[in-house]
Amino acid sequence: MTDALTTTDPRTGETHDTALVATSDAAVGAAAAAAAKSFAALRWTGRAWRAGLLEALADALEAARDELVAVADRETGLGAARLTGEVGRSAFQFRLFAEALRDGGYLEATIDHAGETPIGPGPDLRRMLIPIGPVAVFGSSNFPFAFSVAGGDVASALAAGNPVIIKAHGSHLETSAATFVTLSAAATGYGAPSATLGIVYGTQAGRALVADPQVRAVGFTGSLDGGRALLSIIESRPDPIPFYGELSSLNPLVVTPAAARDRGDAVAEGLFGSFTLGSGQFCTKPGLAFVPAGDAGDAIVRQLADRARAAEPGVLLNERIGTSFGEIRERLVERGRARVVAMGSGERAQGFHATPTVLELDAAAVTPDVTEEAFGPLIVVARYATTADVFTALDAVPDSLTATIHAQPDESALIDELVRELVPRAGRVVFNGYPTGVRVAWAQHHGGSWPSTNSQHTSVGVSAIRRFLRPVAYQDAPAHALPVELRDGASDVPRRIDGVLTLPTA
Amino acid sequence: MTDALTTTDPRTGETHDTALVATSDAAVGAAAAAAAKSFAALRWTGRAWRAGLLEALADALEAARDELVAVADRETGLGAARLTGEVGRSAFQFRLFAEALRDGGYLEATIDHAGETPIGPGPDLRRMLIPIGPVAVFGSSNFPFAFSVAGGDVASALAAGNPVIIKAHGSHLETSAATFVTLSAAATGYGAPSATLGIVYGTQAGRALVADPQVRAVGFTGSLDGGRALLSIIESRPDPIPFYGELSSLNPLVVTPAAARDRGDAVAEGLFGSFTLGSGQFCTKPGLAFVPAGDAGDAIVRQLADRARAAEPGVLLNERIGTSFGEIRERLVERGRARVVAMGSGERAQGFHATPTVLELDAAAVTPDVTEEAFGPLIVVARYATTADVFTALDAVPDSLTATIHAQPDESALIDELVRELVPRAGRVVFNGYPTGVRVAWAQHHGGSWPSTNSQHTSVGVSAIRRFLRPVAYQDAPAHALPVELRDGASDVPRRIDGVLTLPTA
Repeated sequence: MTDALTTTDPRTGETHDTALVATSDAAVGAAAAAAAKSFAALRWTGRAWRAGLLEALADALEAARDELVAVADRETGLGAARLTGEVGRSAFQFRLFAEALRDGGYLEATIDHAGETPIGPGPDLRRMLIPIGPVAVFGSSNFPFAFSVAGGDVASALAAGNPVIIKAHGSHLETSAATFVTLSAAATGYGAPSATLGIVYGTQAGRALVADPQVRAVGFTGSLDGGRALLSIIESRPDPIPFYGELSSLNPLVVTPAAARDRGDAVAEGLFGSFTLGSGQFCTKPGLAFVPAGDAGDAIVRQLADRARAAEPGVLLNERIGTSFGEIRERLVERGRARVVAMGSGERAQGFHATPTVLELDAAAVTPDVTEEAFGPLIVVARYATTADVFTALDAVPDSLTATIHAQPDESALIDELVRELVPRAGRVVFNGYPTGVRVAWAQHHGGSWPSTNSQHTSVGVSAIRRFLRPVAYQDAPAHALPVELRDGASDVPRRIDGVLTLPTA
Repeated sequence: MTDALTTTDPRTGETHDTALVATSDAAVGAAAAAAAKSFAALRWTGRAWRAGLLEALADALEAARDELVAVADRETGLGAARLTGEVGRSAFQFRLFAEALRDGGYLEATIDHAGETPIGPGPDLRRMLIPIGPVAVFGSSNFPFAFSVAGGDVASALAAGNPVIIKAHGSHLETSAATFVTLSAAATGYGAPSATLGIVYGTQAGRALVADPQVRAVGFTGSLDGGRALLSIIESRPDPIPFYGELSSLNPLVVTPAAARDRGDAVAEGLFGSFTLGSGQFCTKPGLAFVPAGDAGDAIVRQLADRARAAEPGVLLNERIGTSFGEIRERLVERGRARVVAMGSGERAQGFHATPTVLELDAAAVTPDVTEEAFGPLIVVARYATTADVFTALDAVPDSLTATIHAQPDESALIDELVRELVPRAGRVVFNGYPTGVRVAWAQHHGGSWPSTNSQHTSVGVSAIRRFLRPVAYQDAPAHALPVELRDGASDVPRRIDGVLTLPTA
């Protein structure tokens, strides 16, 4: 009998002991205390210093790429090509936040000089955003790098000036440990405080982390149930802290009659590729597609089915996802009374696999029973006669991270109507494309109303940094007591001065 | 027996029936449904239209000023001068948000054109902030206008494009009703959707409002217990919604040895004015002052005591505050083992009154027992020998909305040390001034870590609007489907385009 945590190869189902053990509550407390101590130094570091830190992490990540990809492939079955791309994406993300730090706009530096106002004399006020303290980040199962130890929550929390303690996902423990060693060494080499990055292992350690008084915010990407469980721990803290959860999303997609008619083949091909990408294990997977009734729509469904039947089984990340995927598929068929167009099967002698499933029903039959997210290669196609059918059906669909419109350019009135219905229901609206593949950029948004996320936040794109900052205002402060960005004179950051936005002057 | 809600004159304690009754759960549901219906139109209104709406509200408020002040003075005892100023401040606040709408920077308009990136081709992405839906606002007892029906939560939620349903504070029901009639008529006259503004009365109506599925966020200014109660209702919703609570704040103030020596008289005068302003019923009231040991500090304490003993009793807002103030004062004396320098008394034949209380203890005796906020004219003076004593004591003090430093210009090293200790503990740091009197401005921040607020938000200043917005991104959208602010070409708002901040061009 050993206390070692185990890891499993999802291709074979074979499990072996890792060199890791579950982190005790006492060790979690020590990690949080160390992070708080490091924060006392980290919080006063300058933007340029932190930009350099992020770039050092990016460099180290890329230098260790092949080794990390090999470990991750064994633990996730996601394949070397996808994982190599994901490491590149994670490194890019660190560098994008370095760019955001050098830009400095994220500080929201604002200066109101003392003076007369319509309601009397006002003091000098200067405001900017500052870091909040140690941040707990829960790695997700489906992105062993980009939403895990090297992910966007970590990059944005560090960029803000906070130490980060990661709770490694149980599905890729060795990947997490190897990534942590890589990043941690780079941070130390750069001269960062020793507990700038920390890591804990095991479910109970995650709970203890969220309850720890030193932790100031939690970033989480995972299931609705998992998010709910952490939220309830936060609710029982004496001091509630922000919880940034990215939880569950069905990502509806609407194909207009003209799109079905003029480019149905391309839509079927693209849609199939999107809902089966990474074995359908994306939070942005299109899970519900509205396809018009009639021949053109029939052809799309037929092509989806043909592709599904011809598909090789894809690997699912772990046994829990494999089991739960099968159960949800069954529920959708039974409770949702969906027609089975192509029934995926995952049975192999070993490991966790699934071939794609295509279900079909009438748009009028879209009820909350068919809106459960199936994390895996499954799509529900809802056939509609009129646009009104689509809108009625959407009322039964929870809000999502994304919504997608496939339409032809001459349908501008219909597009505008769809936009008015879909924007209120989603965090990102995609036109004539697919929601999987989330560009990391200034304008990105990865969030949406509950249950897609629990807040008005994003976990991808530069504005993700704001989750881990809070404002502070200085009133009538002498110049030496102000952060450099708030002093009068030339500045290398954009600032709003006496109500007027000004560009950097230095 | 009547169902009429009652209101009380705090100067006399006399109570009379109002023409108002408690809003039934069914009526709350109807109000929320009506707000949601109005939101369907309001959400698509333009910035200029909403700026005009806010200005119409400001004009109407000022036109009704005398009448509103008379009602509010009867219900709050705050006096005509203060209340007249508060109406002016509230009108100014509506106009400041109108200015922010015309400016458009609050949208955070961001455009990333399609193109090659270091990790492959990226789609066109455009992001901005959009309104979230009906907002519930709980009026506070101590600001019958500026944090109530005509307050900052209402102004910022409306500016964002959301309907607002106000829960009237039980302590100034007739003021709330009269203000609501004024603003509501102005909104209707301007052509706003009929349920742009709504109001409900009674404690149970407030609970029902927070639980209502149509409500998308809650703004609250009040007690820690009240905030906790509403938070627990939110936690039991199927969809948690953001709660922006401004709850409890002790607002520590530090007088340095040189400030005590060189301008102790002025500090004593200013400090007395600040902690007794509005009978001490401000969330930014300095409740704990660190004064150096020795003669100069003794003189400050003596002057505070002299002023306290000479003071006329001030009116407290209601019986609950009066009772609770007495109880907390007793606890501070007994549990905190504070020396009573001046024991205020509130006893009059009628109404709710208090004269100022000054308590004193050694900084080493500052424990959580003396950090309870006393909502009324009370200050605890902590005497310290060394700066280290102050910092140790501050570890027992919960984070606050504000922290204040009184120092002399030649103490720059000490000032820097104080800043490093106080910035982490407060939302606003005030130098050589007093925290009461919160300038409404772009750079203002009225928030702080728990328990001062429960989030990284502000409820005063332009950025308050962000609490009631969420981001949405458009991917590869045709121009006609985009909000005007996100279309290529000239723009009247600041935008970040391909990573570069650009000023308005139109």
